[in-house]
Amino acid sequence: MQYDYEIAIVGAGAAGYTAAIYAGRSGASVVVFDKGMGGGLAVEAPKIENYPGFKSITGIELMEKMKEHAIEYAQIKFGEEVKEIKVMEEGVEILTNKDKYFVGAVIICTGSKHRKLGVKGEEEFAGKGISYCATCDGFFFKGKKVAVVGGGNSAVIEAIYLKQIGCEVYVIHRRDELRAEEALEKEAKEKGVKFIWNSIVKEIIGKEKVEAVKIRNVKTGEEKILEIDGIFISIGEEPQNEIAKKAGVKIDENGYIIVDEMGRTNLERVFAAGDVTGGVRQIITACAEGAKAALAAMKIIGKRSPF
Amino acid sequence: MQYDYEIAIVGAGAAGYTAAIYAGRSGASVVVFDKGMGGGLAVEAPKIENYPGFKSITGIELMEKMKEHAIEYAQIKFGEEVKEIKVMEEGVEILTNKDKYFVGAVIICTGSKHRKLGVKGEEEFAGKGISYCATCDGFFFKGKKVAVVGGGNSAVIEAIYLKQIGCEVYVIHRRDELRAEEALEKEAKEKGVKFIWNSIVKEIIGKEKVEAVKIRNVKTGEEKILEIDGIFISIGEEPQNEIAKKAGVKIDENGYIIVDEMGRTNLERVFAAGDVTGGVRQIITACAEGAKAALAAMKIIGKRSPF
Repeated sequence: MQYDYEIAIVGAGAAGYTAAIYAGRSGASVVVFDKGMGGGLAVEAPKIENYPGFKSITGIELMEKMKEHAIEYAQIKFGEEVKEIKVMEEGVEILTNKDKYFVGAVIICTGSKHRKLGVKGEEEFAGKGISYCATCDGFFFKGKKVAVVGGGNSAVIEAIYLKQIGCEVYVIHRRDELRAEEALEKEAKEKGVKFIWNSIVKEIIGKEKVEAVKIRNVKTGEEKILEIDGIFISIGEEPQNEIAKKAGVKIDENGYIIVDEMGRTNLERVFAAGDVTGGVRQIITACAEGAKAALAAMKIIGKRSPF
Repeated sequence: MQYDYEIAIVGAGAAGYTAAIYAGRSGASVVVFDKGMGGGLAVEAPKIENYPGFKSITGIELMEKMKEHAIEYAQIKFGEEVKEIKVMEEGVEILTNKDKYFVGAVIICTGSKHRKLGVKGEEEFAGKGISYCATCDGFFFKGKKVAVVGGGNSAVIEAIYLKQIGCEVYVIHRRDELRAEEALEKEAKEKGVKFIWNSIVKEIIGKEKVEAVKIRNVKTGEEKILEIDGIFISIGEEPQNEIAKKAGVKIDENGYIIVDEMGRTNLERVFAAGDVTGGVRQIITACAEGAKAALAAMKIIGKRSPF
C-alpha cells in the first residue's frame, strides 16, 4: 500500500506528541496535525508540578519540550486542521483544511475542552486563580480559600478533594439541591465543605489574580462578594470528538471515545489517546496512552511492536 | 483509624515515585519503601530517549529527578525492604527489615527483573550494547547489526521490530525450532531476519562496548564469533511479586499482578502499578499507572479523588 505517512496523529498535545515519539522510534513514518500551535490544554497551565521529572514547570515550557522531542521522530503540521477522516479497507483518508492524505492508521488525540462559565473575569484571570481541574491544581491552593462552581458528583468530589488538601471550600450551586448523590453531599458537609445555594457567579474579581467572586442569589436577586484565592469551575468537559463521531468511532454517554487498554477503538485503523478518551485526564496519563496507542497501531500498518 | 501513614508505596521506581507525588498532592500522608537506593530498572539505562520532555537523559539522571520530585510529597525510606504485607479489615500491616507500620492502603510498585543469560561479558557490558527491551533501546541501534537471544513470541517480535527500525537482525536460538508461532517466524524470515539455530551465546565480547558474541552450536560443538553492535536478550521477565503473592493478591500466568485500569487488585486495600503489573513496561506507562493507583487509593483511606 502506498501511504503518504504510515501513521497520522490528530492533535499535538501530550498524547499526540508521545504517540509520535513512540511510532517514530518504532520505525513508522509519522505525521501530526494540529489546528493551532500545539500543546493542547496543558499550555493553559501556569504551573505544572505533577509531571514526574519536573518539580515545577509552566505548561508552555513542558509542551515546548515535548514538541522539540516529537519533532525528532515525526513531521508536525501546525495550523492544519483535520476536517474529516474516512476509514477504508486499506487505509484512512485524511482531509484537512489544506490537503488530502492517505495513511495506514490514525491516532485521535484531539483532547477535551473545559466548559466555561462565560462570566466577566474568566478570560482575564485564566491561570491566575481559575482552574478547571482540582487534581491538577488543587495543591497550589493548600491552606487557601476556594470556591467550586457546580452541583454534580464531580463538583462535590472536587470540593471534598480540595478540603482534604487543606483548602477552605465553598460550593456555589445555582439550585437549592445538588445533582450529586446524597451520600456525597453528606460527606462533603461532614468534612466541612460549605454550600452556597441558589447562587450563580456573576463575575470573577481581582487585580493581578483572583481575589473574589461576585455571587447573585437567583431567588432573592441579592448580590454579594465572596473573597477567595481560587475558583474551580466544574461544570463539565467537552471531549473534542467531532471527527471521531463522523467516522463512526464509538463514544460513551459523556462523549469520550471508547478505547481498550491499548487505545484501540471499534474501528481497526483508528486509535485514540489522551483527554478525548476520558479517564483521569492528566498529562502523564495522556502521554502513556499515546505511547500505547502508537505501539498498538504498528500492527495495522503491517509492522510490529513488542506489545 | 490511627495509621502511621495513610498510604505506603513499595518500590521507588517510576511508578512508586509518581504514586507518591499524586497521593501526597491529594492530601494523603505517604511513605515509600525501597530495599535499595531507588530508581528501579530505569537506572540501568545509559540513555533514555522516549520519556516525553527529555530528548535524551540517562536513567540515573531521570530517576534522580523523580526522586527529588517525590521527596516533596512523601517520606522515602531507602534501604528498607518490605518483607511482608498483612491485609486486615481496617488497614495493612507492613513488616520491613527494620520496623513495622500500620497503613491504610498499599501500592505495590516492585517492578520486574530481566532474566539474564548468565554468560561472561553480560555484567561488564550492561548498558554498553546489551539490552533487555527493544521498545526502549531499539532505536539506538538503527542501521546497526544486532542479535536477539530467545525463541519465544516476544523474541521474534522484538527481532521484527528491530528489523523495521533498520537493524540487521540475527536471532540466536538454542533449538532447531522456535517456541514462537509459525506465522511469526514466517513473517520474520520474509522481513529479512536471519536465524542462527541450535546455538547458545557463550560470551559477549568487546572492549569499551559490545563488539561480538561467541556462539556455540550445541549439536556440533563448533564455536564461532558473530560481530554485532548490540545484543537484545529476550528470555523472559521476572515480576517481583513475592510480597503480593504472599498477601493473596491475584497474579496472572506470567506472574504479573492483575489490576484494573486504576491499579486496583483483588484486595481492597492493595493497589499495584508499573512493571510488576505487566503491560508495555515503559517508564511513561509506569508513571501513569502510579498516578492512577494513587488516585484510586484515596477512597479506601476515607478520602477522595476526582477519579
